[in-house]
Amino acid sequence: MSINSHIDLSSQVAELLIVRASGHAFDIQRNYPLWELSNKQIQRLLKVGVGGVIFFGGTSIELQHRCQTIKKWTAKPLLLCADIEEGLGQRFPGGTWFVPPIALGRMYAIDPERAMKLAESYGCSTGSQARKCGLNWVLAPVCDVNTNPSNPVINVRAWGEDPVIVSELTCAFHKGLVSQGVLSCAKHFPGHGDSSVDSHLDLPTLTHDRNRLTKLELVPFKEVIVNGVSAVMTGHLLLRNLDPKNPASLSQLVINQLLRKQLGFDGLVVTDALVMHAISNKYGAGEAAVMAFEAGSDLILMPENPDEAIKEICKALRSGRIPMERLHEALERRQIALENVERFFPASSKKLPNVCNEELQTNDDKEIASELILKTLEVLNPGGIKAPINGINLLRIDSMISCPFITNNSPSICLPESAGFKSIVSHKMTPSIWTNDINSPLDLNLLGEKMILLQLFIRGNPFVANSYDQEPWEAAIRQLQYKKLLAGLVVFGSPYIWDSLIKVLDSSIPAAYSPGQMLPAQREALSKLIMLAPHSRLSQSDLPHAFTD
Amino acid sequence: MSINSHIDLSSQVAELLIVRASGHAFDIQRNYPLWELSNKQIQRLLKVGVGGVIFFGGTSIELQHRCQTIKKWTAKPLLLCADIEEGLGQRFPGGTWFVPPIALGRMYAIDPERAMKLAESYGCSTGSQARKCGLNWVLAPVCDVNTNPSNPVINVRAWGEDPVIVSELTCAFHKGLVSQGVLSCAKHFPGHGDSSVDSHLDLPTLTHDRNRLTKLELVPFKEVIVNGVSAVMTGHLLLRNLDPKNPASLSQLVINQLLRKQLGFDGLVVTDALVMHAISNKYGAGEAAVMAFEAGSDLILMPENPDEAIKEICKALRSGRIPMERLHEALERRQIALENVERFFPASSKKLPNVCNEELQTNDDKEIASELILKTLEVLNPGGIKAPINGINLLRIDSMISCPFITNNSPSICLPESAGFKSIVSHKMTPSIWTNDINSPLDLNLLGEKMILLQLFIRGNPFVANSYDQEPWEAAIRQLQYKKLLAGLVVFGSPYIWDSLIKVLDSSIPAAYSPGQMLPAQREALSKLIMLAPHSRLSQSDLPHAFTD
Repeated sequence: MSINSHIDLSSQVAELLIVRASGHAFDIQRNYPLWELSNKQIQRLLKVGVGGVIFFGGTSIELQHRCQTIKKWTAKPLLLCADIEEGLGQRFPGGTWFVPPIALGRMYAIDPERAMKLAESYGCSTGSQARKCGLNWVLAPVCDVNTNPSNPVINVRAWGEDPVIVSELTCAFHKGLVSQGVLSCAKHFPGHGDSSVDSHLDLPTLTHDRNRLTKLELVPFKEVIVNGVSAVMTGHLLLRNLDPKNPASLSQLVINQLLRKQLGFDGLVVTDALVMHAISNKYGAGEAAVMAFEAGSDLILMPENPDEAIKEICKALRSGRIPMERLHEALERRQIALENVERFFPASSKKLPNVCNEELQTNDDKEIASELILKTLEVLNPGGIKAPINGINLLRIDSMISCPFITNNSPSICLPESAGFKSIVSHKMTPSIWTNDINSPLDLNLLGEKMILLQLFIRGNPFVANSYDQEPWEAAIRQLQYKKLLAGLVVFGSPYIWDSLIKVLDSSIPAAYSPGQMLPAQREALSKLIMLAPHSRLSQSDLPHAFTD
Repeated sequence: MSINSHIDLSSQVAELLIVRASGHAFDIQRNYPLWELSNKQIQRLLKVGVGGVIFFGGTSIELQHRCQTIKKWTAKPLLLCADIEEGLGQRFPGGTWFVPPIALGRMYAIDPERAMKLAESYGCSTGSQARKCGLNWVLAPVCDVNTNPSNPVINVRAWGEDPVIVSELTCAFHKGLVSQGVLSCAKHFPGHGDSSVDSHLDLPTLTHDRNRLTKLELVPFKEVIVNGVSAVMTGHLLLRNLDPKNPASLSQLVINQLLRKQLGFDGLVVTDALVMHAISNKYGAGEAAVMAFEAGSDLILMPENPDEAIKEICKALRSGRIPMERLHEALERRQIALENVERFFPASSKKLPNVCNEELQTNDDKEIASELILKTLEVLNPGGIKAPINGINLLRIDSMISCPFITNNSPSICLPESAGFKSIVSHKMTPSIWTNDINSPLDLNLLGEKMILLQLFIRGNPFVANSYDQEPWEAAIRQLQYKKLLAGLVVFGSPYIWDSLIKVLDSSIPAAYSPGQMLPAQREALSKLIMLAPHSRLSQSDLPHAFTD
């Protein structure tokens, strides 16, 4: 073992922390200044010995610049990671943003062979683009089996609802991902798919016994462990029958007994973000980190207070509460992981080739992203919306702040507008579009008694939880159909919402569903629904009038 | 003269074009794909010989990366410019975004000496940051005298309403700007301050005679020409008394007679963007460029179709419609300008030092930006909003798409929310907040009969024009006051709106005005108005709950 005993304890403990940074270069650009460390803080913590950084925000070019800068701030090799479950472009514009994994699960039912091939390409592209930007660890695949259709936080992020299919797709994705020389991470152990509470907000409790877990939740984890996954992320979930006291992320029974001994996993165990409210509401910043480490976690992700976490873990080691062996095994696992990835990705080559003109997304990446959109799009009554319609294009979104799919060029806005619709958005900060009448819930006085094209952007997003559960879309569709005012329906995101709404939809209504919310998915869906006048210049009118902000 | 006659004509003509590119690296990131050339198109046009690029979009780090990339695509020195009238951060996050020039005009009335000093620092910071990112030409200062308070497109971009003050501040800014080794540009000749039409939408007509121009509009231009301004941008304005036929940007009388002969300017003349609707609606893409060049413009900014512009100008030169001398003088002026700037900024040093951790904004820059916000903030009845208030925080903005001042951390949202208000936004895509009753124009059924804190983000923005003219804010304030429902009023942007609204405001209402719309301006204004409960932890509650998108 190559752990140098002369390195002081706190520096060794610090190596196990993954702290959060913005992908933007400058402090003033941070989207979440309370959670994203300042550059001074990052530099100080790297000196203290912190061994990993997770990035949020910024574009792919900024991320590359950021990884280069941060590597210059320390001589140690770092774990540099991001939550890019749906391709680099999910969080870092410029990269490819794929339809969410659930789309592959649906595709698998029709064409399992192609679905498997695409899942592998999906992983391959994600790993390759992550590496080009300087990351060496991708926090994916999600191994949760989404058995609860109203799961507020997993939902479309899962590869499906069937443990065997999820297992197959997860392993295919994983194969592609690690072929590109990045570390992987199976999450959220022992399975977050049946929860009905968002652990970002509160602690979900599950009552499954070991038998049920073996048959369902654990299947994909077991398989991806056999396939050599680098790390397993534990969820902030209370599994009463496994450990009535501690959530999985802080549970010795879950980590040591179940994951290590029974499933035989000897890679890195990492906690889910320790700042999450399920944990931060209950335990202190220091104690949460100590408990996670004591329970068997090797890496501590986003501790609420890194200094406190280091201090308290050191104290627990010195006092004998946690045996020193725990530290050594965690450091050794980290080192092995880094050595594995550095065979592809030498730490010495601090300077990466500049990601330049079109070198980030390959043509293959683009084709796979397109194929996934096309093959997972569902359309009823294509061409059924005939322009011009002097109607309302009503878009339901969670929030317009930092919304990656509402831009000046969003086809969900531009295409209906070119067909004569006026766009109105509804989100948590707009005047309410609802009445108190459960039979006529949409406020048609407000919207005008016009034909309405309804576009719902709904997927399980962290923190947003089930806010849409309070929105009576089924009743709204019935109301509009009764009044003959429903021009069309489009759902972008959750298949469960789509499946529930088509049950009440008249068979004559033009409608479409895409699991993806990105601009190309909008373009495909809307252009299949709307039949523009023969001479309308779609390529032009698809685009906005103004040319600057 | 060093123009090489062996270089073919079209390559020489191409040198005079400034084409538009996104500041983002990748084609899929373009905000305005119709107007921003693809990377392939840029590379092709640089091979054809195009000599300049104007950037829109992207962050400061992306801009730096972009300038480096584009310089690698050609061996020729390029003019690389941006419309950063209010500091680099106005368009490229990471840089400093200053309050708009009009703020300095107001400050000048109180403390002319400090206003002059700050205007110089404003220019200095803008030039320095532009240079660090790779630009060599800043399209500022605006030299228009904003004599029309409802000017839809100049407004806060002007340094004031008085020709002498505008002249002084413009020259102070210019002194700072050029001290940093970038080229400058006085705009929009012969003066856009009295227009009431947005030339992005249609052609403004002015009836001023030469006498009036001499006394008013021309004063700042004359002065900044004496001070060595590098370029003058002509406006898309019809000055009936100077040239009844052609707008200034296409007028030989305005450019040759007035600007060259009478004002003695021998630097670069550049058109305003030729894609602007005032021009593009009337002349063809090729003919507009030919007319501008024929009239005396040296550089053609954002031609609607660069290939067409090159072809048609070549044709006009070959046919003798435009003398070859016109080409030679334009190329010579461009070369002199480049030589001037390359003394500071050698074209050979293609690789700039990396703008890294906090090296872009200096402490001086930050202090100047803060001082400008503090000194130009106006507050009535400070501390007059006493938390907690179960009211509505009503924000009026132009658009939430790409809105640089509405983020997860906007104090205009977070501070009122921490005081108990619920935020509602009104913009062109939200359900209307208006009734048809001119005396009770705000729809209080919709908003709830609650105390309302009104925050108006209104400034003359291109394309938005006077959309707020249709919004009866004076009547709304009277309505809320009558019902005792006005908790407070804040105006961010136009001083003219503020001046008109305080006329109807009860003297007891807490109110504030800032010329700036940026987050720090919001923080100053709101924190001065709202008195939070003594134990509320503002530093925490000022920030959002969620930690990812």
